[in-house]
Amino acid sequence: MAYLGNAELVAAVSNAGGLGILGTGYSPPAWIKEQIDLTRLLTDRPFGVNIMLRSPSAKEAIDLVKEEGVPVVTLGGGDPSEHLEGLKSSQSHAVPVVADPETAAKLAKLGADAVIAEGTEAGGHIGRLTTMTLVPQISAAVSIPVIAAGGIASGSGLVAAMALGASGIQMGTRFVCSEECIAHRGFKERIIQSDGQDAIEIGRTIGRPIRCLANRLTEAFLEAERRGASLEEFFTGKLYVGVIEGDLENGFLMAGQCAGLIKETKPAQDIVREVITEAESIFQRLSRDWNRGWNE
Amino acid sequence: MAYLGNAELVAAVSNAGGLGILGTGYSPPAWIKEQIDLTRLLTDRPFGVNIMLRSPSAKEAIDLVKEEGVPVVTLGGGDPSEHLEGLKSSQSHAVPVVADPETAAKLAKLGADAVIAEGTEAGGHIGRLTTMTLVPQISAAVSIPVIAAGGIASGSGLVAAMALGASGIQMGTRFVCSEECIAHRGFKERIIQSDGQDAIEIGRTIGRPIRCLANRLTEAFLEAERRGASLEEFFTGKLYVGVIEGDLENGFLMAGQCAGLIKETKPAQDIVREVITEAESIFQRLSRDWNRGWNE
Repeated sequence: MAYLGNAELVAAVSNAGGLGILGTGYSPPAWIKEQIDLTRLLTDRPFGVNIMLRSPSAKEAIDLVKEEGVPVVTLGGGDPSEHLEGLKSSQSHAVPVVADPETAAKLAKLGADAVIAEGTEAGGHIGRLTTMTLVPQISAAVSIPVIAAGGIASGSGLVAAMALGASGIQMGTRFVCSEECIAHRGFKERIIQSDGQDAIEIGRTIGRPIRCLANRLTEAFLEAERRGASLEEFFTGKLYVGVIEGDLENGFLMAGQCAGLIKETKPAQDIVREVITEAESIFQRLSRDWNRGWNE
Repeated sequence: MAYLGNAELVAAVSNAGGLGILGTGYSPPAWIKEQIDLTRLLTDRPFGVNIMLRSPSAKEAIDLVKEEGVPVVTLGGGDPSEHLEGLKSSQSHAVPVVADPETAAKLAKLGADAVIAEGTEAGGHIGRLTTMTLVPQISAAVSIPVIAAGGIASGSGLVAAMALGASGIQMGTRFVCSEECIAHRGFKERIIQSDGQDAIEIGRTIGRPIRCLANRLTEAFLEAERRGASLEEFFTGKLYVGVIEGDLENGFLMAGQCAGLIKETKPAQDIVREVITEAESIFQRLSRDWNRGWNE
C-alpha cells in the first residue's frame, strides 16, 4: 500500500475496529513521522506501520517507529531478522510478512510477535504458495498468531482464513477501493472491473515476482523479461504513475486476484463492518449445514 | 489422476464415504470399460469417471459412461458444452471442471449438475485464479453445487472451502499418496518431501499451463518455452514415465501445491476419515473462538 495507505485511510480502518497500517514504501522518515502524527490526530485506536526493508531509509524508519511507540510494525521486502530484537524491546510488536513456513519458523524463533502469511494471489511483491496452501503450513510451523493475507476481500475469506489456522486477516486491494483511499479513480475502477484473472505475475524469472493488473507496461516488462533485457527502467516511479497519477497503461497497478471479489468503492468503515457481518452470516450458515450434515 | 485414479483407488475412496473418480486421461474406451466393471466389483457405492476432453476417444468414452450409467461424470481439458445435454438425459450427473466464473455460469445454463472450481494451486492442467479467489466468485455466479479443488489436502481445506461457498471438495495429490495408488513410490516420496514451492507452473506462455514438481524435465521445458521452441516432444508419454515408472527427473510429476501439507502415505480410507475428523475439530475450534470473540 505504498503511496496509498496514508493517515486518513489508516485512521478510518482503525476507527472502524480494524488495525490500519501505514504504507511507507520508499518514503523518507520525515513523511512517515508526519503521517504518524496525523494518524494520532485522527484516531486514538491502535494502528500499524509497514516498513519496506528494501527502502534505503528502512533503518531510520525503524528507529522512528520505535521512538514513536507505534503499536504494530509490519516488515516486508527483505530480511527483518536483525530488527526483531530491537522492536521487541521497544513498545512495538514486530510482524514480518512471510511467504513460506521455514522463514516463518525462523522469524518466530528470533522474536517476531506474529507473522503475516501472504499467499501468492496478493498484490505487489509475492511468494509462490497460495493462501490456501501457505496458511495451514505456517500455522503448523509457529505458535505465534498468524495473519492471513492474499486473496481476501470479504467475510468468506475471513472465515476461510480462520479455518486454515489464521487469527486474523490483512486486506490491501480491498482498501484501495475505499472512499478514503487516495488511489486514482481510474485505478479503483480497473480493480472493480477486474475478475482477478488480469492480476498477473511479472518478474518471477528475475527473482522479484510482483502481481499487478495487466497493461501495456506489464506487457513490455514480460517481453523484456523473456529477452533477458535489463529491467531497471521499470522500477523507477512506475507505481506512483499508475496508482496515484492514474496512467493505467504506463504505470504499475499493484493489485491482488481478489480484485475479482470487489464490486464497488465504499467507506473503509463499511468495508470493515461488511466483512465482519458477512463472516458472521457465513459462520451461521456453516453451523447449520455442518450440524445437518452429521445428522443425516 | 490419469494412470493413477484406477478402480482400486476409486473403490477405496467410495467405500470410505467419498466419491472415487476414475482418471481416464488418454486411455482407450476398452480400458475404461474394464475399470468401470472392476470398480463395480469392488464397491457398490457411487463413483465417478473423469473424461479428458482432449483425448481422441473422448466422445466414445462419453457414450460409454452414459451406457454404463456412471453416476458422476467430471469433464476437463476442453469445452464440455456439447456433452452436457446428452449426459443430463442419461443417468449421469455432468460435472465440468472450471477455472473462471464466466465459464461456470455458461455451463450451469447449459445443464451442468455441479461444477468443480479448481484453483491454480492444483496439480496438472490449471487456470489462473487461486482457490481462495475462485471459489467465492463461482459460488456467486451459479446456483448449482460447487466443488472446490486445488490446494486442499486436509480438514482445514474442507472447512475453508465450505466457508468460500463450496458444497464439497475434490482432492487429487492427497490420494496420490494413498497406499492404494499405483503411483511410483519415488513420486509419492517426492510429494511427501515437498513444501509445495517446487510444485511449479510450466506452459503458461503457450496457453497450456500445467503444475508439476520441478525437475530436469520442467527445467528443459521452461528453457524451450523461453526460447519459443517447439514443445511437442514434451507431451509424449512423459507423465507415465514420471508417475508410474518413477523417473523423477525425466518424467512429469503432476502435483499441486498442497504437496506441502502431505506428510505420509496412508490408506485412502484413513485419508477420507482424517479429513472429516480434522474438519470436525476445526469447526469446533472455530465455533469456540467465534462465540468467544463476539462476547469479548
